[in-house]
Amino acid sequence: MSAAIEKLIQRANQVDSLVCVGLDSDLRRLPESFHASETPQYAFNRWIIESTIAYCSAVKINTAFYEARGEQGWLELRLTMDFLRLEHPGVFTICDAKRADIGNTSESYARAIFDELGFDAVTLHPYLGREALMPFLDRADKASIILCRTSNPGAGELQSLLVEGRPLWYWLAKQVATYWNGYGNCMLVAGATYVDELQEIRNLVGEMNLLVPGIGAQGGNIEAVVKAGKNSGNQGLIIAASRSIIFADDPATAARMLNATINQYRNQPV
Amino acid sequence: MSAAIEKLIQRANQVDSLVCVGLDSDLRRLPESFHASETPQYAFNRWIIESTIAYCSAVKINTAFYEARGEQGWLELRLTMDFLRLEHPGVFTICDAKRADIGNTSESYARAIFDELGFDAVTLHPYLGREALMPFLDRADKASIILCRTSNPGAGELQSLLVEGRPLWYWLAKQVATYWNGYGNCMLVAGATYVDELQEIRNLVGEMNLLVPGIGAQGGNIEAVVKAGKNSGNQGLIIAASRSIIFADDPATAARMLNATINQYRNQPV
Repeated sequence: MSAAIEKLIQRANQVDSLVCVGLDSDLRRLPESFHASETPQYAFNRWIIESTIAYCSAVKINTAFYEARGEQGWLELRLTMDFLRLEHPGVFTICDAKRADIGNTSESYARAIFDELGFDAVTLHPYLGREALMPFLDRADKASIILCRTSNPGAGELQSLLVEGRPLWYWLAKQVATYWNGYGNCMLVAGATYVDELQEIRNLVGEMNLLVPGIGAQGGNIEAVVKAGKNSGNQGLIIAASRSIIFADDPATAARMLNATINQYRNQPV
Repeated sequence: MSAAIEKLIQRANQVDSLVCVGLDSDLRRLPESFHASETPQYAFNRWIIESTIAYCSAVKINTAFYEARGEQGWLELRLTMDFLRLEHPGVFTICDAKRADIGNTSESYARAIFDELGFDAVTLHPYLGREALMPFLDRADKASIILCRTSNPGAGELQSLLVEGRPLWYWLAKQVATYWNGYGNCMLVAGATYVDELQEIRNLVGEMNLLVPGIGAQGGNIEAVVKAGKNSGNQGLIIAASRSIIFADDPATAARMLNATINQYRNQPV
């Protein structure tokens, strides 16, 4: 098993949590008090991490909200990662960058995300196929999280097209499980807003970990997600919540409550 | 017609060129003389731009090679864009970032690429569907370049899957031309390494501009590409070459020769 996947499982067991807090720290939405800081996104992230990390197995950082601020945003993204690695080295870190390019370019992205920034995992678009993603997939020590069935309302436009009677996402899930996952370091994204598909993906991929966005602001149902998505060990899920935790009046309580709700359902028989 | 597309056509006419130089300025491959600079990628890019721009309608910057250097890379990417906008404002600029995320995140990427950095166009993954890309597509003043048939050897793994008897890329090309392109600001990526598919895409999309990577280092044939891909006005192509120009012994000559070769074929009857 990949070192990254081992790290995830160990952390999930240690804090008894499948929650992933998403640092979608859009500058325009930060509380007023952070705007005086020279590094407002980093200051906000530190506060969110310290408030919520006890209830989280993973942290997910969406690069878009940092790129929107150019090199200053990248500095604050890096400071956040440096802080996490130093202060909370057991936490599983996901770069939600949704990258993918031809091989020589993917290699540069892999260096940026895995080596320069030090993330444990990255989210990837599948459209160019396995061959283009080899610089990520070949990193046995890291995890590659492939977009399969995304949470957005229009996800079906391509993903639900039928290939030999099955939707594209189905075919992709099978392909990743059987062909892309040679190092046991692959995961899939399966949105909480499509529970039937999540259930089918779980049936297809065995014990594989699934990253599940779409609860919280996007409206996915927690009970349904946990029951459809958990694996045979009542685990195998990274349930991501971003805006609903970080912009809550009390982020610590929001993370703790989410974890408690998830754990209540995952320990019930289906 | 979108202001960005008008700009592209005007520039292509003005310099009589369909060439796009790709600033894949991987630090590890820069000539020794640039390594002493405090901003080596920017210094190299300025040199390449000044050497080749007379033969180019467009410049394409691949973000991966800058992200690999963290905030310093982003600074040099921004300096390159500032230089281009100031010194060569007529040149069409493409951010080859291959982005796509759910709506609220795509909005942040669009701000980063179109507003903060000032690019005319961006490359986008189609897997999340049109709805997720609306923050890009709604920018009538900018161009959205959708990955359709990519140039990499393994492109067919997903892109050639048959949907109602036609490959996925075919379906996507049709969908973009008829449904995504409300502002006339869409283009497609069609790799030079798949000429038959390029020809079919041309037949499907009418006069739409196509971004064609894959000549040069990837081995696509220029004559075949031009004859298969040009539109009724002997235009409609952005033929990208990166490594084969910027790492040539003489980049100016490489760009000039490529332009001459393309122009020779585009003015021949098919």
